[in-house]
Amino acid sequence: MNVTIINTGGTFNKRYNPIKGQLEVPIDNIALDKIIASCHNVDFEIKNIVSKDSLDMDDNDRQIITDVVNQTSNDKIIIIHGTDTVDLTSAFLRKEVTNKKIVFTGAMVPMSIDEAEATMNFSQALGFLSADIKNGIYLAMHGVVVDASKLVKNRKEGKFVIKD
Amino acid sequence: MNVTIINTGGTFNKRYNPIKGQLEVPIDNIALDKIIASCHNVDFEIKNIVSKDSLDMDDNDRQIITDVVNQTSNDKIIIIHGTDTVDLTSAFLRKEVTNKKIVFTGAMVPMSIDEAEATMNFSQALGFLSADIKNGIYLAMHGVVVDASKLVKNRKEGKFVIKD
Amino acid sequence: MNVTIINTGGTFNKRYNPIKGQLEVPIDNIALDKIIASCHNVDFEIKNIVSKDSLDMDDNDRQIITDVVNQTSNDKIIIIHGTDTVDLTSAFLRKEVTNKKIVFTGAMVPMSIDEAEATMNFSQALGFLSADIKNGIYLAMHGVVVDASKLVKNRKEGKFVIKD
Amino acid sequence: MNVTIINTGGTFNKRYNPIKGQLEVPIDNIALDKIIASCHNVDFEIKNIVSKDSLDMDDNDRQIITDVVNQTSNDKIIIIHGTDTVDLTSAFLRKEVTNKKIVFTGAMVPMSIDEAEATMNFSQALGFLSADIKNGIYLAMHGVVVDASKLVKNRKEGKFVIKD
Repeated sequence: MNVTIINTGGTFNKRYNPIKGQLEVPIDNIALDKIIASCHNVDFEIKNIVSKDSLDMDDNDRQIITDVVNQTSNDKIIIIHGTDTVDLTSAFLRKEVTNKKIVFTGAMVPMSIDEAEATMNFSQALGFLSADIKNGIYLAMHGVVVDASKLVKNRKEGKFVIKD
Repeated sequence: MNVTIINTGGTFNKRYNPIKGQLEVPIDNIALDKIIASCHNVDFEIKNIVSKDSLDMDDNDRQIITDVVNQTSNDKIIIIHGTDTVDLTSAFLRKEVTNKKIVFTGAMVPMSIDEAEATMNFSQALGFLSADIKNGIYLAMHGVVVDASKLVKNRKEGKFVIKD
Repeated sequence: MNVTIINTGGTFNKRYNPIKGQLEVPIDNIALDKIIASCHNVDFEIKNIVSKDSLDMDDNDRQIITDVVNQTSNDKIIIIHGTDTVDLTSAFLRKEVTNKKIVFTGAMVPMSIDEAEATMNFSQALGFLSADIKNGIYLAMHGVVVDASKLVKNRKEGKFVIKD
Repeated sequence: MNVTIINTGGTFNKRYNPIKGQLEVPIDNIALDKIIASCHNVDFEIKNIVSKDSLDMDDNDRQIITDVVNQTSNDKIIIIHGTDTVDLTSAFLRKEVTNKKIVFTGAMVPMSIDEAEATMNFSQALGFLSADIKNGIYLAMHGVVVDASKLVKNRKEGKFVIKD
């Protein structure tokens, strides 16, 4: 299986900087590399772009992500993204890209703090791409992979839940 | 989404017993519970049976697993199984069950030692079940979910790889 | 051995709050409890007070800590404290308390993110108290336990180093 | 502070070999290196010898350890050792070495499985050596550092406890 991963930052990637005393979005793929270390049957193409907390993203960033998607020859793409504006970026891409299977994912807790949640969300995206699915814009969070417009962040509870 | 998990033991579940000084297959779901803690959109039915290293399983155990599968009303089932004889158990079930989507999974390293690999394998199974797949006997290991007969353990390298 | 632990907060205790998206100083002892779980030969008295990032501490807080120290019948005391003002609090206590063996400790990275550093610093304090030491105000950080005035934070490098 | 660490193996160091499906005593210092990564104020000399489960050690191994101790110019020495025969090795060294401060330590659970216990035991040894102690043969386990003859393994409970 060939899969392109576009890592745009977000909580998923955050690591603690002991000198500044705070969590930062790094510009590397250390969190991702640990998750995919066991994926002996996938050829990954990994692109690290934007590297922002998604609260700091704007439509310029979304255009950059869209351009990278369009330059990718693989039709199976996972986009790692902050949880706060993943709804905006997925809606942006839906208007621009129709010939790919794009699965957004992310985490409520950094991989560097809780390996289970970040690995769950990412690996669900990968498992979903193993199936014979239609082109579309999907979101893999908290147990399910569905059309990205149907799974939304409940900010009060810190959970993604399927819209009624 | 409704999913039945049948936890039969194997390396996936092993924990260290400091008094005996060795790893043991427990009869609980502690490893699994940590993985699914973030799955807010799935109703799980969890059945813990057999609880063996898969080298110690025989056709009696495989019949027990088959019976539990047949008693399950859900058609989406994940079976956590040791890696050494998952080929035998999946072949056994293939002859007995045709009306379910059954995904076997497991781990080369216990969840208690490496959270990433066990969580990857299990979560791929769950992500695959989010797609509109056909009834069948599948195996989720090391990056892909495919028909269980096509993904085999390379004992020398400690990896599951797709058969040519 | 009888030891009183006064847990005043600081990075040592910080945990990630996924709803707020940031690290917080909790008012519990979860980090500490994990560290001392194996200490079968110590009777601990644990007091959780102040619960602040040490940048937010003032002399009122230092007086509260001093009062709790003076109310303690044990003469062996470990104080968990943020690293940014541990020099001020240890200097404050030096003027007020002379009849105890007080060892300050803390961490540059939260126990919830890196178990090794926080456990190292705390456990050095405990090992030092196992020896026949004089009353005094000590600091256990980054490999050594010495008089608190001699081990200072290098903010640029994020390390405590012995003063020349 | 100058400290020599003699790493002789034991549970402390064990890591899981996924190909063999069991825990092994490695001939490296990966467990130790993670523990001492924050010790910016200590010059360590590390010697990795014997590399055995202590149940497999005999007096030949004990003589090798004694010889290495005698060749060491540092008088502060930590010996990482399996818990099952640490009583025999410490008694052996007591007869042979009288001019050093030797602290034995180890773990009931491998560092690769539980970072807190192994780090606690080792770091207590290091904190004890920060104090002005007499030459002797000590054992750092489960909360205290005392003369090695006074702290014994309760095999039934999997704990080291001070002898009455």
